[in-house]
Amino acid sequence: METTQQEFGPHPKEYEECISDCFSCYEQCTVCLSHCMSMGGKHVEAKHLSLMMECAQLCSTSASFMQFNSSFAIELCQVCAKVCDACATSCDEVDPEDPVMQECAAMCRQCADSCRNMVQ
Amino acid sequence: METTQQEFGPHPKEYEECISDCFSCYEQCTVCLSHCMSMGGKHVEAKHLSLMMECAQLCSTSASFMQFNSSFAIELCQVCAKVCDACATSCDEVDPEDPVMQECAAMCRQCADSCRNMVQ
Amino acid sequence: METTQQEFGPHPKEYEECISDCFSCYEQCTVCLSHCMSMGGKHVEAKHLSLMMECAQLCSTSASFMQFNSSFAIELCQVCAKVCDACATSCDEVDPEDPVMQECAAMCRQCADSCRNMVQ
Amino acid sequence: METTQQEFGPHPKEYEECISDCFSCYEQCTVCLSHCMSMGGKHVEAKHLSLMMECAQLCSTSASFMQFNSSFAIELCQVCAKVCDACATSCDEVDPEDPVMQECAAMCRQCADSCRNMVQ
Repeated sequence: METTQQEFGPHPKEYEECISDCFSCYEQCTVCLSHCMSMGGKHVEAKHLSLMMECAQLCSTSASFMQFNSSFAIELCQVCAKVCDACATSCDEVDPEDPVMQECAAMCRQCADSCRNMVQ
Repeated sequence: METTQQEFGPHPKEYEECISDCFSCYEQCTVCLSHCMSMGGKHVEAKHLSLMMECAQLCSTSASFMQFNSSFAIELCQVCAKVCDACATSCDEVDPEDPVMQECAAMCRQCADSCRNMVQ
Repeated sequence: METTQQEFGPHPKEYEECISDCFSCYEQCTVCLSHCMSMGGKHVEAKHLSLMMECAQLCSTSASFMQFNSSFAIELCQVCAKVCDACATSCDEVDPEDPVMQECAAMCRQCADSCRNMVQ
Repeated sequence: METTQQEFGPHPKEYEECISDCFSCYEQCTVCLSHCMSMGGKHVEAKHLSLMMECAQLCSTSASFMQFNSSFAIELCQVCAKVCDACATSCDEVDPEDPVMQECAAMCRQCADSCRNMVQ
């Protein structure tokens, strides 16, 4: 198992910021999902709603992987960065003037950057 | 459906603190769960580990229910308060000197109080 | 901790059916949620969508609680039964002719019954 | 958004088996996780427990991504296949004679194969 899982214990310090951003992005996407359902119209189109849910679930999963020092954390963060970017773009397209959407898009972009920094 | 679900829209302001505490407690329990696994011994006894996982999952679920203004949110918070209290007690029993356990116990008690305030 | 958590070990046999129904209902609600998003219109109204997501998440959480022999499992199943019933009613109201909705409603009612049987 | 998300609607038929396997693997890992906690000893070593939790959470997330026809589903399944394989190996290493562990290992390998078939 040594080849598939890192040493367990305190996780590397560079993980801290990304874990925090993933938890925050999960929370922000849940807030925004609730907002979109209350708005209706373009906010509840399938592509947007599903991206919001995918982003929330994958951010939560990625945070756990990093917290557990999983040897698959980096690889999962690569996918997470792409989903976060797509979710941010979708929020911009649905309503670039809506402050809840913009707050969510900003959080998604910050989380995407943190996930990419993990990879490098 | 009017009898089983509140008006959707901006959720009541008194929800805000409890939603925030539930998200924070979910995050703190995930951190502490990782810590317990790395410690071994009493930290990985079945009763303690399962309570940590139950508390994390129910806090996350309760936060979503409040965020969605579910008419079942209050009832779920009643159960969540009990699980948070039990998790705090378990953390104290496993190691009252361990700072990670104590931080988790404190967060669980704060979340339990917030959930009880929802009920009243 | 003895007062807040049952003896750990093989869970009572009467749990088996309810655990299985909760996992199946979680899966069915995820399938139906995807269907509703693709349909649009009444299928994506806030009250319905949020009930679908609440039901999926609480069924998954309840299954874990039973699997872990949590002393809070019975209490959580009481709430789960109500959410499942509300979700079934909502599926009926959105489209009583839609086979995906009807399959989901039937699964929700079966899960609600199993959860109530746990309680008695 | 057209470039980051597939057409929404009924998902491709080749997804069906993989979605079903991911849901089943999530369920089986939850069952096995409960078993491991009740056994103690090697069953609750950090590397094994965290792999069980990672596998359960990622299988559940991957199933949702496929269900929602996410354009990131294939990429996520690539990571999921690796986690499933690592979890199966870990179950074998912990106790190759334990029937619960062996059932879990078999389900993980079946799910890994399904996820790899998605990729090809």
